[in-house]
Amino acid sequence: CHKEFGEATAILAGDALLALAFEVLAGGIEPPATAARCTAVLAQAAGPTALVGGQAADLAGEFEEGDIDALMAIHRRKTGAIFLAALQLGGLVAGADDEQLAALDIYGTRLGLAFQITDDLLDVAGDEATVGKRVGKDAGHGKITFPSVLGVEESTRHAEQLIDEALEAVAIFGEKAVNLTALGRFVLERNR
Amino acid sequence: CHKEFGEATAILAGDALLALAFEVLAGGIEPPATAARCTAVLAQAAGPTALVGGQAADLAGEFEEGDIDALMAIHRRKTGAIFLAALQLGGLVAGADDEQLAALDIYGTRLGLAFQITDDLLDVAGDEATVGKRVGKDAGHGKITFPSVLGVEESTRHAEQLIDEALEAVAIFGEKAVNLTALGRFVLERNR
Repeated sequence: CHKEFGEATAILAGDALLALAFEVLAGGIEPPATAARCTAVLAQAAGPTALVGGQAADLAGEFEEGDIDALMAIHRRKTGAIFLAALQLGGLVAGADDEQLAALDIYGTRLGLAFQITDDLLDVAGDEATVGKRVGKDAGHGKITFPSVLGVEESTRHAEQLIDEALEAVAIFGEKAVNLTALGRFVLERNR
Repeated sequence: CHKEFGEATAILAGDALLALAFEVLAGGIEPPATAARCTAVLAQAAGPTALVGGQAADLAGEFEEGDIDALMAIHRRKTGAIFLAALQLGGLVAGADDEQLAALDIYGTRLGLAFQITDDLLDVAGDEATVGKRVGKDAGHGKITFPSVLGVEESTRHAEQLIDEALEAVAIFGEKAVNLTALGRFVLERNR
């Protein structure tokens, strides 16, 4: 977008889409209490404590080399918070109870982190056609990644464990979890 | 912000504040139906049909030189929409009825446009100490302004007429409109 239409337009497009998301939530969900709660969930996920804060921490390089906990905290705030919000919004609109929402929270946090790990692994091992972006880009810019800290094997094992935990959490939904289960497996398989 | 902390951080700060605004509205207003309606009002004002769309049209220079209607349409979408949203949000939270909300709408649109006109006038005639930014900046960049199209005298007269209409609209609130009336007068007086 910024290459095709310029940076100012790209920034405006982001602002427009962010506002539109809130308009859809606030105006398109019944009852109004659910609309307000969904809006608050997205606002928190997109705001300074989550997505924006995580991106700022990432830009500032707020972690020592090899500090995997700090790396995971950043990913939890960035992609993780949005994965989680997507799960919570679906649960809230469907009228999920507290136990079901808690299960979706576990699934969302595990899936988000596993996705980031396999994204890093694809960056190391994938070929350009599969991932659709220049391979080695992140590592080439000295950015800390899971394989660079844990190694490829341990990163793979960790992603698998996270998906195991995610699928276990949504087992309470029985057959209704078929798509969530398939999505979890896809996150692992897209790495092969 | 962008000079002190860099452009990436400035963009993130804007995103963070936008999300925070929605969080405050969605989580801090009772009953939830009012929270949802307030969120929708702000989302529309900040989104592609208003603020962002107006800024995009301004950037694209979507008006012929001297086309005052197109200029006003852009200002209505940019600053005007946010002035209007501020009035609507106050009215909604205070439980205003439809007639009162309509009066606030008239006040908000007139005040917003008058503010923009006096802003343009200050840019022509003001001194740097009063307005706190470099005088002549907008005109210097070839940007279309009210005084450049209508002249200083006609622009001043138009701003006065808009404020007259704004104050007339909020007269239905009686003495409760004292602050809105003072604000309207201030928009005119800050030009002298």
